[in-house]
Amino acid sequence: MAQKFDVHILGCGSALPTHKHLPSCQVVNVRDKLFMLDCGEGAQLSWRHTGLGWSRLGHVFITHAHGDHVFGLPGLISSMALMGRTAPLHIYAPSSLRPFVQCVLANFCVGMDYDVEFHAVDTMRHALIYDDRSIEVWSLPLQHRVPCCGYLLKEKQGLPHIRREMIDFYGIPTWAINGIKAGQDWQTPDGQTVPCSRLTTPADPVRSYAYCTDTMPTDALPEMIRGVNLLYHEATYADAECAMAKNYAHSTASQAALVAQRAEAGQLMLGHFSARYDDESQLLHEAQSIFPNTILASERMCVAVR
Amino acid sequence: MAQKFDVHILGCGSALPTHKHLPSCQVVNVRDKLFMLDCGEGAQLSWRHTGLGWSRLGHVFITHAHGDHVFGLPGLISSMALMGRTAPLHIYAPSSLRPFVQCVLANFCVGMDYDVEFHAVDTMRHALIYDDRSIEVWSLPLQHRVPCCGYLLKEKQGLPHIRREMIDFYGIPTWAINGIKAGQDWQTPDGQTVPCSRLTTPADPVRSYAYCTDTMPTDALPEMIRGVNLLYHEATYADAECAMAKNYAHSTASQAALVAQRAEAGQLMLGHFSARYDDESQLLHEAQSIFPNTILASERMCVAVR
Repeated sequence: MAQKFDVHILGCGSALPTHKHLPSCQVVNVRDKLFMLDCGEGAQLSWRHTGLGWSRLGHVFITHAHGDHVFGLPGLISSMALMGRTAPLHIYAPSSLRPFVQCVLANFCVGMDYDVEFHAVDTMRHALIYDDRSIEVWSLPLQHRVPCCGYLLKEKQGLPHIRREMIDFYGIPTWAINGIKAGQDWQTPDGQTVPCSRLTTPADPVRSYAYCTDTMPTDALPEMIRGVNLLYHEATYADAECAMAKNYAHSTASQAALVAQRAEAGQLMLGHFSARYDDESQLLHEAQSIFPNTILASERMCVAVR
Repeated sequence: MAQKFDVHILGCGSALPTHKHLPSCQVVNVRDKLFMLDCGEGAQLSWRHTGLGWSRLGHVFITHAHGDHVFGLPGLISSMALMGRTAPLHIYAPSSLRPFVQCVLANFCVGMDYDVEFHAVDTMRHALIYDDRSIEVWSLPLQHRVPCCGYLLKEKQGLPHIRREMIDFYGIPTWAINGIKAGQDWQTPDGQTVPCSRLTTPADPVRSYAYCTDTMPTDALPEMIRGVNLLYHEATYADAECAMAKNYAHSTASQAALVAQRAEAGQLMLGHFSARYDDESQLLHEAQSIFPNTILASERMCVAVR
């Protein structure tokens, strides 16, 4: 069974909140380590519906310094302090967000028991900005009205799986297992060599998730996320509003679908819906006519990356 | 029929939001003019459930610079700009909140079509800080861990009501009505004097609402709000937690009830509930044993001031 790689949608509306949608925020659960993508107002409120533990959240990635992507940060930072957090919280964002974070820390978080570490992200570069044993996070330059970048979360290649029945058959001791997983063959007591390929099955394929909002279409993006399993791409407007989309540096549903098509993505999830749409099925149909495997994001939804 | 004087509860929880409660925020509707009291995170989101028009909101009164009372301001200010607001928004708050408001305006509201005017309130003084044709707003010094004051909203005395049947009986012309309301007697064509008391019924009694959070009990408060029709008083804790209440400069339900009793309030509404209580009926019973006409605040509730 594949390890956890789930995307929880906390908010998928655009700047103006509606009865239906909250501002942008997602939590990605990678093997029970949590990563937040954007932090719109209400993030800490809707977090409670996910049932996820606060202490597992260590890193927040912000696309750009527009209010509907960051106004949940003050409440998130303060509440985690009240809940007794001591581990540092890392915020990755364009440098333009730094003054706001500093202002919040200086005015509301004096004497807090944990540190908030701000990491300025160069939104013009496609670069590795974070990695640990299980995942890499890459910045994805986007084109919006202010410095903005998306994020690509990519699993690291795991180890092959041990074939328990073969281990038992050859009576291989536990101490040798890690070596075999790492590619070593096994020597039997009578000098026979058993290639590790006979003792293992291949590692799980690497999965990836791309979070791309807010942006107008760019030629470079599809190449940077080629073969991504799941792509979240903003679709603020329907095709009829393409002039407005261009004017505000946003995308239409069809433009989002074209990105998914060119990137040969596995699945497309649309979000950042304009408040003008009571029902986004129109956006869905426009996207599906170009990229059939498209779904609409919605609050409280959890999508597994496959 | 009395004119509108309604209190809409948008949030009545304390610092840690729960599934049940949002941070502090209320909207008071006085004759269709709206006044916001505190602005916790999610204020603009729950506002939508009230069905009230944004444009009627002109003044926001903040008790103190703790996050759970102010983190809704950035979203409120930004969204009203997106909705095309041009009228100034007046924020009354302790001066300690000014840097946060300035930071939000400088980083997220450049080129906005309306002004936000910050009015520093001296939390140590019981003073008139706002008035218009229909209402006065007074500051109420409170005792918390940071400079903090409550607010007393008090109707101005209206004019007496014209007795339509008497006006018709004497054939009094329309141009004379305002004079009679203002207290002038009426001279009939044949020289008879009709005292205005016969032509009018008394004006409606003046109503008042006091919003008192966050605070520990103070001796001065009851006198400042004597005879208030409706008192919202924080009751963060039950009596069993009175040591904690003192430690954090908050009140218990009983302490809130004693304030209502000493102030000879008409009705008491408890709020700012600690997240530890799944059910606040315990707080209600403790308060009612001292001040029977007590109710619990809850989100989406609307209480008329009578």
